[in-house]
Amino acid sequence: MTDLDYMELAIEQAKIAASLGEVPVGAVIVKNDSIVATAYNRRELDKNALAHAELLAIDRACKRLGGWRLFGCTLYVTLEPCPMCTGAIINSRIDRVVYGALDPKAGSCESVIPLTEFPYNHKPILEGGLLQQECSQLLSDFFQQLRKKKLKKTSYKK
Amino acid sequence: MTDLDYMELAIEQAKIAASLGEVPVGAVIVKNDSIVATAYNRRELDKNALAHAELLAIDRACKRLGGWRLFGCTLYVTLEPCPMCTGAIINSRIDRVVYGALDPKAGSCESVIPLTEFPYNHKPILEGGLLQQECSQLLSDFFQQLRKKKLKKTSYKK
Repeated sequence: MTDLDYMELAIEQAKIAASLGEVPVGAVIVKNDSIVATAYNRRELDKNALAHAELLAIDRACKRLGGWRLFGCTLYVTLEPCPMCTGAIINSRIDRVVYGALDPKAGSCESVIPLTEFPYNHKPILEGGLLQQECSQLLSDFFQQLRKKKLKKTSYKK
Repeated sequence: MTDLDYMELAIEQAKIAASLGEVPVGAVIVKNDSIVATAYNRRELDKNALAHAELLAIDRACKRLGGWRLFGCTLYVTLEPCPMCTGAIINSRIDRVVYGALDPKAGSCESVIPLTEFPYNHKPILEGGLLQQECSQLLSDFFQQLRKKKLKKTSYKK
């Protein structure tokens, strides 16, 4: 399977999030062309600030592989990771990160700050912009739907 | 209870970590003068890159308080948080962070980078250096013991 295939799987994960009312972000971790973890954002469902797709995927990958060092792994994620998730990528020694859409508000691979460029003890390879349009569209559609629902709710109250 | 009292509790947590062979870092989260979570570093025991004291404490606090926004909470931690944990502090909207020792290798409140100074959507109040000497000493003692053990192990092998 190619980077494109794995990102499409991450998009499928993001779509599950959207269907559950969560901001659509999905992640897949791959090692030696095998999927070791998939996850989608569950912050509202889990009522937990840590429940970003990347963190849930890293947690599962550590459990699956039986260690905290995810050497040889690539993380595919539909949205540029936030500082927490970029930090978790550094801590777990993930080799490579492929992300889709940019996140101008919290993205910490290039948008707000290029966190991995600072002298931490691990520096993953970053590749941004894969299926960027599809990943962005998912987010735009989600927020548009959310605004519509809120508008509807507001008008019912009148 | 005062900041000093809570930091002493965080040090107690760090000591539990040391007794289990983990790098001694401990954390306590407090809201309205009540402890809502305590945790210590369990990275080796859990074989999980996410098992830092701060992340475990934030996870517990979200579960305890029933939401992902930890408004009104103060996090006490014996070591300056890494980028992952500083990001989690931003994401969980923790009001205030009090830390002990500096971490020149991964500290992301001031040492490697002042991460909270960048334009994310939340900026916690930071207070570093409380019981710094005690917190540092715990870490130095732990690593000294570790070196001794390794030396012993090496000489057995001869």
